[in-house]
Amino acid sequence: MGSDSDLPVMKQAEDVLKELEIPVELTIISAHRTPDRMFDFAKNAHKRGIQVIIAGAGGAAHLPGMVASLSPLPVIGVPIKSSNSIDGWDSILSILQMPNGVPVATVALNGAKNAGILAAQILGTTDPLVLEKIISYKKSLADKVKEKYERIEKERKQ
Amino acid sequence: MGSDSDLPVMKQAEDVLKELEIPVELTIISAHRTPDRMFDFAKNAHKRGIQVIIAGAGGAAHLPGMVASLSPLPVIGVPIKSSNSIDGWDSILSILQMPNGVPVATVALNGAKNAGILAAQILGTTDPLVLEKIISYKKSLADKVKEKYERIEKERKQ
Amino acid sequence: MGSDSDLPVMKQAEDVLKELEIPVELTIISAHRTPDRMFDFAKNAHKRGIQVIIAGAGGAAHLPGMVASLSPLPVIGVPIKSSNSIDGWDSILSILQMPNGVPVATVALNGAKNAGILAAQILGTTDPLVLEKIISYKKSLADKVKEKYERIEKERKQ
Amino acid sequence: MGSDSDLPVMKQAEDVLKELEIPVELTIISAHRTPDRMFDFAKNAHKRGIQVIIAGAGGAAHLPGMVASLSPLPVIGVPIKSSNSIDGWDSILSILQMPNGVPVATVALNGAKNAGILAAQILGTTDPLVLEKIISYKKSLADKVKEKYERIEKERKQ
Amino acid sequence: MGSDSDLPVMKQAEDVLKELEIPVELTIISAHRTPDRMFDFAKNAHKRGIQVIIAGAGGAAHLPGMVASLSPLPVIGVPIKSSNSIDGWDSILSILQMPNGVPVATVALNGAKNAGILAAQILGTTDPLVLEKIISYKKSLADKVKEKYERIEKERKQ
Amino acid sequence: MGSDSDLPVMKQAEDVLKELEIPVELTIISAHRTPDRMFDFAKNAHKRGIQVIIAGAGGAAHLPGMVASLSPLPVIGVPIKSSNSIDGWDSILSILQMPNGVPVATVALNGAKNAGILAAQILGTTDPLVLEKIISYKKSLADKVKEKYERIEKERKQ
Amino acid sequence: MGSDSDLPVMKQAEDVLKELEIPVELTIISAHRTPDRMFDFAKNAHKRGIQVIIAGAGGAAHLPGMVASLSPLPVIGVPIKSSNSIDGWDSILSILQMPNGVPVATVALNGAKNAGILAAQILGTTDPLVLEKIISYKKSLADKVKEKYERIEKERKQ
Amino acid sequence: MGSDSDLPVMKQAEDVLKELEIPVELTIISAHRTPDRMFDFAKNAHKRGIQVIIAGAGGAAHLPGMVASLSPLPVIGVPIKSSNSIDGWDSILSILQMPNGVPVATVALNGAKNAGILAAQILGTTDPLVLEKIISYKKSLADKVKEKYERIEKERKQ
Repeated sequence: MGSDSDLPVMKQAEDVLKELEIPVELTIISAHRTPDRMFDFAKNAHKRGIQVIIAGAGGAAHLPGMVASLSPLPVIGVPIKSSNSIDGWDSILSILQMPNGVPVATVALNGAKNAGILAAQILGTTDPLVLEKIISYKKSLADKVKEKYERIEKERKQ
Repeated sequence: MGSDSDLPVMKQAEDVLKELEIPVELTIISAHRTPDRMFDFAKNAHKRGIQVIIAGAGGAAHLPGMVASLSPLPVIGVPIKSSNSIDGWDSILSILQMPNGVPVATVALNGAKNAGILAAQILGTTDPLVLEKIISYKKSLADKVKEKYERIEKERKQ
Repeated sequence: MGSDSDLPVMKQAEDVLKELEIPVELTIISAHRTPDRMFDFAKNAHKRGIQVIIAGAGGAAHLPGMVASLSPLPVIGVPIKSSNSIDGWDSILSILQMPNGVPVATVALNGAKNAGILAAQILGTTDPLVLEKIISYKKSLADKVKEKYERIEKERKQ
Repeated sequence: MGSDSDLPVMKQAEDVLKELEIPVELTIISAHRTPDRMFDFAKNAHKRGIQVIIAGAGGAAHLPGMVASLSPLPVIGVPIKSSNSIDGWDSILSILQMPNGVPVATVALNGAKNAGILAAQILGTTDPLVLEKIISYKKSLADKVKEKYERIEKERKQ
Repeated sequence: MGSDSDLPVMKQAEDVLKELEIPVELTIISAHRTPDRMFDFAKNAHKRGIQVIIAGAGGAAHLPGMVASLSPLPVIGVPIKSSNSIDGWDSILSILQMPNGVPVATVALNGAKNAGILAAQILGTTDPLVLEKIISYKKSLADKVKEKYERIEKERKQ
Repeated sequence: MGSDSDLPVMKQAEDVLKELEIPVELTIISAHRTPDRMFDFAKNAHKRGIQVIIAGAGGAAHLPGMVASLSPLPVIGVPIKSSNSIDGWDSILSILQMPNGVPVATVALNGAKNAGILAAQILGTTDPLVLEKIISYKKSLADKVKEKYERIEKERKQ
Repeated sequence: MGSDSDLPVMKQAEDVLKELEIPVELTIISAHRTPDRMFDFAKNAHKRGIQVIIAGAGGAAHLPGMVASLSPLPVIGVPIKSSNSIDGWDSILSILQMPNGVPVATVALNGAKNAGILAAQILGTTDPLVLEKIISYKKSLADKVKEKYERIEKERKQ
Repeated sequence: MGSDSDLPVMKQAEDVLKELEIPVELTIISAHRTPDRMFDFAKNAHKRGIQVIIAGAGGAAHLPGMVASLSPLPVIGVPIKSSNSIDGWDSILSILQMPNGVPVATVALNGAKNAGILAAQILGTTDPLVLEKIISYKKSLADKVKEKYERIEKERKQ
């Protein structure tokens, strides 16, 4: 993530990955304040055995796109509605609108949880265990909705 | 893709995947006109050995998100600036802004080429051959730019 | 509605329909978390004697459009400014901008009350009793404004 | 409709209703240029046996909302991207964002065809013949998509 | 104004006109809830000796435009950022974007004070006394700024 | 107007004023290229007997607001969708959103014709002859619509 | 700056310049309330030895552009999200979208700190001492990020 | 500039600088396709005697901001409305909305000519000859307007 102010959002990616028992490392790399560190990180990530990179940033959010330009790995971008952002539009557009050749897999504004799930899905394409976990996770989502609609319907029948 | 009018855009994903020698199938599935077909496709894709789904649609673009809700596979969404779209904003927002639990990996407006590359990158996380192809592909992008700046600089030196 | 967080808004539709003595059932159906339930509901609603469907959702709001694709009944869509929505624009555009063949009758952002009134108006096209209730309801709106302008004008004359 | 320049769009509503064998009348009523005519029309439509009103307009589009304020019938609004409109945003917002008590059933920008289908669906809530036609119409949409995807898949198998 | 919730904003127009000693009447006329009252008011205002109309409304704000369609007087429109408005965009666009032939003199979002000043300026085109008041008013604005910059500059010199 | 490229739009104001037999002068004053000329013009217009100023400009359109700051006369602003404008949004916002104390009577994007009519309406507040012309003009608008709806209705009866 | 309500934002420019030991003067000049003062200031600034002008304003923000039209010096514009601004869009567009010939160096919404740094960078183009300070300042930014990521990484290793 | 497709726009900066007799070099550096080249260029520009950098890019335009993060020189950003841009909004926001510490002096969409003039103004802060040229250039702008308004006024007097 680009700044420690992004932590409350980006921690959700870390949390869901831990919940799915997928190893994750979380750190701060600022495209604009520590460009050298970004270069080193992005150029070497795939050599260190990292398989997917999640990059979150707000405002003129260059971190996801620059990491994508420097790494052959899939990069998931999380636009963050930070305090200096114009309702999140700047974050979304500067992450999403990458030129041909350098994709960033963009998720919803502040959608760090989905970034974690997407990372797991990517690993699940070849790891049947992770795929099973995704299938269970989706089922649990349905179960939670079921609980809610049964309560609401019951209330209305009384 | 949701409609045959999306073909000129979505063909770019097919082309880049063929160029990278990754098997690809391309068809039309309309979320709104053929919902049953969408259900069958999305629920069974991972059982058929499909690893990544690319879904492109325009306007109130529900195809990528609905496929993502029905499949455990990573779904890449391509917002298309179709004739009935408001400058592409509707396509982007209805693909990008998915709720927690159901990510869509969204690429740029009309960014089908990047969707193809992203799909390859996803496979490259476990397939070293594909990873190599991605690295070569990125190098070729740099080479093309080099050719252009050398020409422009040469013109100016004369 | 797509989530129980939509209840404070969607309850207004239920309330106005009860006020107009029109039978109503309210439940949660998530397009993305319970797609099977959505399919069953939407395909069978008209067989169960339901005449109008009101569907409210926020963010990438696919529920109204998907229900409209699966049911021959008129579907009223309520865009909801939920916490994960970008000022409501995503909700509005992903409900409103449906492709040809699959309309959603969209009302204002958070306009669940109007969704209820519209549902009553639809029934009123063939039920003279309901039509009368609509006419009375509209008169009561004018009466409330009258009370207010008389008070304001009186204050200013003193 | 508010102007004869809206005819190419609004004719699509007339066409689809004729196709579904539902009687329809089409005329021009300008909220801003013929307000008296609008008043007469809207106040008396339900007395003349009209069941649903479709109103299309562009720019600061007041026709649908004003007709809705004057008539107890359901009013379907078609935002039109006319020459004086800012990419259609003004048309959409001035039709959609109606205050509580006075709904307009808004369809997509230039979505006159969908307005016609929605009108038929409204009649279909009590007319089983019309409901059947809607069901057939939806099936025909799926059939057209089927034709297209079979051709595309066939081309790719060769 | 269209609703009593607009009073805190619209009172500023009343206040500035009273300050400039220009007679003003303030009331509620809802385009959508009391259309008949709006018709009577707008058609007869110029016959009652009213010279300028200020109309404020929010959301799908039809009051200023409809009054302008019914009256030959200059109509000043105040877009109001009411609770049901999307950041004021709907209010602005549905007041500003009037078709050829029916202008509304639109002021800034919530700019009721400026609406009052503009009304005074309109009267000042033929009433030298009012023109003098406008000139004095503008001088007082400059004086207030002078006071402020002198204080800030003084603070910095210490 | 701020530039000769605005002439095709702004000429419509001149034309409608000539049609209403109201004397008008048209010239180019650029806020950014001829600021001194703007100062002289705006400070002295009311001394020269000018009663209303119409100012049209595009992009970061400062002419209307600066003239309004320098003159006690009512200033009508015409946002122009010039080639350097972002779909007209910059023109609209930089004319409309004036601070308290300095109103600009803003009309629709490219709405120079309405600016001319509004100027006439302002004069009509004290000049009964001009008021009569406005009333006739409005009647002629209704007549033109009448012609059109009669033709459309006739076509449909055949 | 255009108003004393802009002080909390604009003080950040003053602060960073003082921190970099660059002389700065701060005052209020309102384009719309004190146009004469603006003219005097802008026309004479370069004669008084001023090298860079920073102008901040909100809403229809004409101060930066008008100063740029009157002065040959580089003008840095700070769009301010003031209370009368529409989420800052009006401030940004009316400062950024200047016509050819009259640039304003626009920084981010409320980006007064960056305006100060940019002013220093401009002086640093010819003053090696200031250039050194800029280089140190940038290093200090990286150091602060380093501190943060080391803490976060340490926490995660425990 | 980020791509050779930006040449028609960016050449205007080169042209105006040549016209003002200021040495300029123009080349292509893609943030996303040639990140290493960008790093080398940006880190060393000030050592090579370059005083101001103009960077133009479209879409998710990261070039200006990344160069600004790597160089102590003032960086002027030109948002370009390229074919893959959403009406230019992505280009503007990803250049303008830089975080604190790393300013980009952003000019209007496609405003490369103004970028050239701004660069000259920056040099003019310490070079009296360049300052003189800027003053002359501004006078020539006024002269061109004068020619135009004299012609228009003359036409109208005949």
